[in-house]
Amino acid sequence: MRPFTYETPAARVVFGPGCAGGALAEEIERLGARRVLLVTTPRNAAPAAGPTRPPHVVAVFDGVREHVPVETVDQAVALAARTGTDALLSVGGGAATGTAKAIALRTSLPIVAVPTTYAGSEVTPVWGTTEGARKTTGRSPLVVPKTVLYDPALTMSLPAATTAASAMNAMAHCVEAFYAPGANPITDLVAAEGVRVIADALPAVMADLGDPAGRAGLLYGAYLAGSAFAAAGSGLHHKICHVLGGAFGLPHAETHTVLLPHVAAFNEPAVPALRTRVAPALGGVDVADGLARLAARIGAPVSLAQIGLAQGDLDTAIKLVLEQDLGGNPRPVGEPEVRRILTGALHGRPPATTAQPATRGVSP
Amino acid sequence: MRPFTYETPAARVVFGPGCAGGALAEEIERLGARRVLLVTTPRNAAPAAGPTRPPHVVAVFDGVREHVPVETVDQAVALAARTGTDALLSVGGGAATGTAKAIALRTSLPIVAVPTTYAGSEVTPVWGTTEGARKTTGRSPLVVPKTVLYDPALTMSLPAATTAASAMNAMAHCVEAFYAPGANPITDLVAAEGVRVIADALPAVMADLGDPAGRAGLLYGAYLAGSAFAAAGSGLHHKICHVLGGAFGLPHAETHTVLLPHVAAFNEPAVPALRTRVAPALGGVDVADGLARLAARIGAPVSLAQIGLAQGDLDTAIKLVLEQDLGGNPRPVGEPEVRRILTGALHGRPPATTAQPATRGVSP
Repeated sequence: MRPFTYETPAARVVFGPGCAGGALAEEIERLGARRVLLVTTPRNAAPAAGPTRPPHVVAVFDGVREHVPVETVDQAVALAARTGTDALLSVGGGAATGTAKAIALRTSLPIVAVPTTYAGSEVTPVWGTTEGARKTTGRSPLVVPKTVLYDPALTMSLPAATTAASAMNAMAHCVEAFYAPGANPITDLVAAEGVRVIADALPAVMADLGDPAGRAGLLYGAYLAGSAFAAAGSGLHHKICHVLGGAFGLPHAETHTVLLPHVAAFNEPAVPALRTRVAPALGGVDVADGLARLAARIGAPVSLAQIGLAQGDLDTAIKLVLEQDLGGNPRPVGEPEVRRILTGALHGRPPATTAQPATRGVSP
Repeated sequence: MRPFTYETPAARVVFGPGCAGGALAEEIERLGARRVLLVTTPRNAAPAAGPTRPPHVVAVFDGVREHVPVETVDQAVALAARTGTDALLSVGGGAATGTAKAIALRTSLPIVAVPTTYAGSEVTPVWGTTEGARKTTGRSPLVVPKTVLYDPALTMSLPAATTAASAMNAMAHCVEAFYAPGANPITDLVAAEGVRVIADALPAVMADLGDPAGRAGLLYGAYLAGSAFAAAGSGLHHKICHVLGGAFGLPHAETHTVLLPHVAAFNEPAVPALRTRVAPALGGVDVADGLARLAARIGAPVSLAQIGLAQGDLDTAIKLVLEQDLGGNPRPVGEPEVRRILTGALHGRPPATTAQPATRGVSP
C-alpha cells in the first residue's frame, strides 16, 4: 500500500439513453440557471435550435473549433456578456467541452456538459487553448462542469473513424493514468476498469456502429477514463500529443491512437501495473502489444505520417516536446528517448517490446 | 449498462503511515485555518495536548460519546463559539467524526478528519445524532470533511475486538452499497474492491494486530467502503442498525457484524451482484455464507443477544424498524420480514441460505 494523495472535485453525473432530453431541463434548473449559452458546433446546434431546444437557452455559440483557438473563446465570452448568460451548456466532443471550459475560466460561469464523443474532458479540471502554433494548458476547479449528462443515444451516429479514434483517446487516458504524477490506487482501479470496458465494447461497436450496449459501454469507459485522468494528471504521452496537435494541427484523437503504444512501451519497464493490469485486459503479452492488436483490429491509423506529420517536421516536434516539463515521467526522458518514440510513431514501426522473449518449442 | 445518477462531493484524501504527523499541519494551513477545535475522546486527546499537539489547536473538546448525543454537540458548539474556532479537527473513530459533523452542521465550520477506526464516516455526507432513545440521521454537504488523513500508524493499537467489529462495519458499507438507493456501476466497482481488500487484510491483522501491510489494507478498505456508502446511501441494514443503536445502546460496529449476513441473505435473491461479485470475494457459496465464514474466522459475535439485546426488546425493535422508511429496499419489507431477520440475528441462527442446494454425489 503506497502512500498517496487523491483529490477529486465535486461531481454530478447522469448516465442513460435519452437523459439529454428530459433530464437536461431538470439539471439546468437544478443550478438555478435561467439564461443559458449553448456552446457547440453547427452540426450539434441545428437540432438545438428546433423544437427540442433546451429550456433557458438564450444564445448559441456554434463557432467551436478543434484545439480551442483563443479567438473563438474571445467571441464566445463577448456573446455571453452581451446576452447576460448565467450558465454554459456544452454539447459536443472535446472541442465543445474545451471551449466551454475556456469561457468558464474567464467568466466563472457554471457548465452543464453533454459530451457526444469519448474525450473525457467533461470530468477533468484541465483546460487548453491554442494561440498560433502553441497550445497552453492548465488546471482549475472553475472549469469542472457542475453536471455531466452521458446520453449514449447521442453517440449512435458517430462515424466509424471518429468512434475508433475517440475511444482510443479514452484508452490513452486509462493507460496514462497508471504513471501520471497523481497515479494512486483509486485511479488504478478506475483506469483498469476503463481499459476492460473499452476493450470489450470497441470491437462490438466497430462491428455494428448502432449497437446500444456497445455504445453505452464506450461512453461509460470514456467517463472512467476521464475520471482517472482527472486525478492522475497528465504524463509524457499527453504532453507529446498536445505539442503535435497544437504545432502541426494533427487530429487529437488519432494522434493518441498512434502514439500510445510507443510511449507505453517506453514506460512499461518502470511501471509494472502496465504489464500486470493493463496488458491482460487487452489480451497482449505487454501493454504495447495489446494496444497495437486492438488498434489493428479496429483499423485505426498506425503512423503519424498517415495523419499528417511530415518527416521534415520531426526535428521541430522533438524540440517542442523537449520544451515541456517532462520531469515527472517514471523513466528519464531526453532528446534520444523522444527521438526514438517519435521516429517509431512517425513511421508506424511496431514499438520495441520490453517483454521477455516467449519460450518456444519447450513444453513443461 | 443501467441508467444511473452518481453524485460525489469534492474530496481530498492523504493516505500513508505517519501522515497525521507532518502532513496534518500542512493540511490545516491549506484551509487557511488558525483557530482549530480538536474534537476527540480523552484517550486521543492526551497525546494531542503534549509536544505533538497539532498546530493552531486553540481548544480541545474530548466529550465525544457513542451515537453523538445532542447534549455533547451543544457543549462543543458552545466551546467553538467561545474560542472563536475557524476549523474542526476530528481525531478518533466514527463517534469523533460524527461529533465534528454535527458541530459543522450547525456552524458550517470546515473539518479535517483523522479517522482511527474503519467507520468510513469521514468521507460521507451523512450525519447522525441521538436524543433520548431515538437516532436522527440526515445528509448535508456541510458535514463532509474537506480533508481526510488516513494514517495506518494510528490504527496499530486498535484492540482485536474493536478491529474485527470496525472492519466488519466497513464490510457492511461495501455490501449495502450493492442495493442501497444510489447504487450504480461506480459504487459497485469501489465496493467490490473494498470487499476484496478487507477480506484479504482482516484475517492477517487478526493473526498479527501490528501487521503494517494488513493495517494499511484495512484502512484503505474502510476508505473504499465509506466512499461507496457515501454515494449509494443507506439501505435496510443500516436502518435496522441505527434503530438498534439508538434505542437499545447496542455497539454500532458489532451490530453491523451480527446483522449483515441476515439482511444480505434476505436481499440476495433480488440483487444478483451479491452472489456474483461479493460472495466470490468472500469465498462463500452465497453472500451470507461468505460473511458468516469471515465473521467466524475472526471470532466476531454472531448474535444480538451476545451484544445486549434482550428477547423482551424484540417487539419494540421490530416496531421501531417498521417506523423507518423501508420503501427503497429491493425486496418488499413488512412486519414478517423484519421479524424473521431480527429473530435470526437475536439468536445467531445461520441465515436462511438462498443458494441452490449443491449437487451431491454426481460427477459430470
